[in-house]
Amino acid sequence: MKRSRCGAWCLMLASGSALATSSGHTGELLFGLFWVVLAAALMGTVASRFGIPAVVGQVVAGLLIGPSVLKLVRPEEFFLTLAEIGAIFLLFMVGLETRLGELLRVGREALLVAVLGIALPLVLGFGFGFWQGQANVSALFVGTALVATSVGITAKVLQELGVLNDPFAQVILGAAVIDDILGLTLLAVVSGLGAGQDTTAAQVGLTLGLSVGFVALVLTVGIPLVRRGQARLQELSLSRAFNVALVVGLGLAALSTVAGLAPIIRAFLAGMVLAEVKDEVAFESTVHAIEAFLAPVFFVVVGLQVNLGALTQLPVVIAGLVLTVLAVAGKLLGGLLGARSLGRREATLVGLGMVPRGEVGLIVASLGLGAGLIGEPVYAEVLLMVLLTTVLAPLALRALLRRERLVQQAP
Amino acid sequence: MKRSRCGAWCLMLASGSALATSSGHTGELLFGLFWVVLAAALMGTVASRFGIPAVVGQVVAGLLIGPSVLKLVRPEEFFLTLAEIGAIFLLFMVGLETRLGELLRVGREALLVAVLGIALPLVLGFGFGFWQGQANVSALFVGTALVATSVGITAKVLQELGVLNDPFAQVILGAAVIDDILGLTLLAVVSGLGAGQDTTAAQVGLTLGLSVGFVALVLTVGIPLVRRGQARLQELSLSRAFNVALVVGLGLAALSTVAGLAPIIRAFLAGMVLAEVKDEVAFESTVHAIEAFLAPVFFVVVGLQVNLGALTQLPVVIAGLVLTVLAVAGKLLGGLLGARSLGRREATLVGLGMVPRGEVGLIVASLGLGAGLIGEPVYAEVLLMVLLTTVLAPLALRALLRRERLVQQAP
Repeated sequence: MKRSRCGAWCLMLASGSALATSSGHTGELLFGLFWVVLAAALMGTVASRFGIPAVVGQVVAGLLIGPSVLKLVRPEEFFLTLAEIGAIFLLFMVGLETRLGELLRVGREALLVAVLGIALPLVLGFGFGFWQGQANVSALFVGTALVATSVGITAKVLQELGVLNDPFAQVILGAAVIDDILGLTLLAVVSGLGAGQDTTAAQVGLTLGLSVGFVALVLTVGIPLVRRGQARLQELSLSRAFNVALVVGLGLAALSTVAGLAPIIRAFLAGMVLAEVKDEVAFESTVHAIEAFLAPVFFVVVGLQVNLGALTQLPVVIAGLVLTVLAVAGKLLGGLLGARSLGRREATLVGLGMVPRGEVGLIVASLGLGAGLIGEPVYAEVLLMVLLTTVLAPLALRALLRRERLVQQAP
Repeated sequence: MKRSRCGAWCLMLASGSALATSSGHTGELLFGLFWVVLAAALMGTVASRFGIPAVVGQVVAGLLIGPSVLKLVRPEEFFLTLAEIGAIFLLFMVGLETRLGELLRVGREALLVAVLGIALPLVLGFGFGFWQGQANVSALFVGTALVATSVGITAKVLQELGVLNDPFAQVILGAAVIDDILGLTLLAVVSGLGAGQDTTAAQVGLTLGLSVGFVALVLTVGIPLVRRGQARLQELSLSRAFNVALVVGLGLAALSTVAGLAPIIRAFLAGMVLAEVKDEVAFESTVHAIEAFLAPVFFVVVGLQVNLGALTQLPVVIAGLVLTVLAVAGKLLGGLLGARSLGRREATLVGLGMVPRGEVGLIVASLGLGAGLIGEPVYAEVLLMVLLTTVLAPLALRALLRRERLVQQAP
C-alpha cells in the first residue's frame, strides 16, 4: 500500500515537473497528461476510501476534467493512443494471471453467456429504436452499441478484489473473448448495411472463421511453442533470443492483423501464452509497473470521451435511462441464463461483469454518428447508457462480492 | 540481466499483439510503436554485444526505421510526446541518483564548463557560418545549434557504466542544468533577432533571473520541505497525503512554467529533491520500470527525426563534417579548460560528455528552418553534425572509461 502511494506521488511530481514551456503542442499534451495522472490518482484514492472501485473514480475523474465540466483536457489522439496502450498492458496483465486449462473448463458457460449477451441486447436495442420510430439502420446501430462489452473495466475490478481466478471470473473473461469476435463481426455487417453494401453470408463466415482460427491457433500452437522454446531460450545468447522473439512477435502481429481481433483481446491472448512460463522468468513486476502508470490513463480517457453537453433535453435523458435499463437487463439475463449451471449468485456476478459498455460502446456510437447512421439525440442517449453502465456495474459487482464474502464467513 | 531480457521480450509481444486493426490512425500509431520497441530492443542488444553503448544502437535504429531508410515510422507528434515522457523519466531517474551536496562540491567547475561550452561553440559556429557567407542571423543560428547539449544521451551512458556518482559525472550534470538555462535564453534572444525584434537587456535579465531563481528555490526550499514533510506524510492518511502532493505538484508546475526551464531539467530537479527521501520510500523500482520502457523510445525517436534525404550533395556533406569537428572541439575545449582542476583525464571525460547535441540540436535546427532563418543546406549540415556528435561521443566516452578502468586496475 505504501509502495503504490509513493509510486503515484512520484509520477505526479515527474509529470508536474514536465509541465509545458517546451515545443508548442507537445508541451500542451504533457500538461494534459499531468492533469490526467493527477485526477486519476486523486479520484482513485478518494473512491477507494469510500469503498468504491478505483476504476469508477477514475472514469468520473475523466468526466470532470473533460469537455463536459472543467474543460482542462480534450480527448486528443495522443490520449486515445496512450489509453489503448494502457488497456493493452492491463489485459496483458490479466492474461498473465489466466491459465488456459481453467478457462476451457468453463468454456460451455462462456459460449452461452457470450451468445445470449449479444442476442438479447441486440433485440432489446433494436426494439427500442424501432419503438422510438428510428430508421431500421439506426435502430440496428443502437442494438449494436448495446452489444458492446468493455472487459477492461470489469477485469480491473476483479483484479482489485483478487477474484480473477474464481470460476465466474473465468466465465467473464472467456465470454469477453467470444463477445469480441462476434461483436466486431456484427459491427462490420451493420456498418456495411449502413453504407448500402450487402454483406454476403460467405464474407461473414470468412471473417468469423479467421478470428476463431486465430484464437485457436495461438492457444493450441503458441502455448506448446513457448513452453518448448523457453528451455532453449534460456540457453541462447541474448541477441539470438531476441531474434526468436522477433519472429514470434512479427508472426503474431501479421496473423492478428488478418484475423481482425481487437488489440486488447490479442494482448490478453499474448499474456495467457506467456503465463505458461511466467514462473520461470521474472517479467511480471516490470509489466505491472507500466500497467500501474498507464491503466488509470485508460479509465480517465473513457470518462474524457463522454461529452454530456448534448444531454440538455429531458426526453433525451429519459430515453437514455430507458436504454440503460435495457442494456443492464440484456446482459444480466444473458449471464443468469448462460451461466445457470454455476448457481444463481455466480450467474448474477457473470451477468453484472458483462454490463459495462466502456470504450467499446463509445467507439460504436462514434462510428454511427460519424457515418450519419444515427442522429445527435440517439448518440446522446447511447452516451448516457455507456456512462451509467460503466459506473454502476462495478459498484454493484463490488457490493455483491462483499456481501457474498460476509455470508461465506458467517457459518 | 535475465530479467531485463524478459522485460523486453514481454514488451515486444505486448506491442506486437497490439498491432492495428483498431480505429484507424490509433492503430497505425500502435503499429509504429511496435516497430520502435522492436528496433530499440534489437539494436540495443546488438550494440551491447559489440561493446557499444545501447543508446548508440537505439539512435541508429531510429535512423534505420525512419524516413531516411526503411520508412516504417514517421516522427509524428505521438512519438515526439512519448519520447519526451521517456526523457523525463530518464532524467527523473538520474536525479534520484544525485545528491545536492555532491553536485555543489563541483559547482565552480560546472559553471566554468557550462559557460565555456557555450561561448566556444557559439563563436566557432558563428565564424563558420560567416566564412560560408551566410547572413548574420543564419550564422548566429548555426552557433546556437552548436551550443545545444543533450544531457539525456550522456546521462544514460554514464548510468549504464555505473559512474553517475563520479566527480566528473557530477560536473556534467551540473553543467547541463546551467547550460539549459543559458542556452534557452540564447535561443530566445536569437529567435527574437530573427523575427526582427530587439530584445532588451532587461528582458534577458528577467528570463535569466527567473530560471536561476527557480532552480535555487527548488533546491533550497524543496529539499528541506520534502525532508520535513516525509515524516508527516507517513502519518497522514492516504487521501490526505495526496492532497499535500497535489499542492506541491501544482506549485512546482506553476512556478516552472513561469521560469521557462526545459521539462527534462525540471524532472532532474524533481528527482534530486525526492532523492533525499528515496531510501525511506520504495518508489525507485516503479519509476525504473517505466523508464526502461520509455527511455529507449526517446533514443529511437532522436534517430527518427534525422532525415538524411537532404545529404546528397558533396559540399553539404563536407560542410557538415567540418561543423562536426568544430562542434566536438568547442565542447571538448570547454571541458578541458573548465574542469582543469579535476586533472586532464577527467576533464577530457567532462568535455566528451558535453558533446552530444541530440534532440536539443534538432529542436534548434527545426525552429530555424521553420522560421526561415536558415536554408535547407545549412539545416542538412546541422543534422549531420547532430547525428555524428550524438553517435560518436558515447563511443569515445565508453572507450576512454574502459581504458581508464584498465589502467586503474593494473597497479
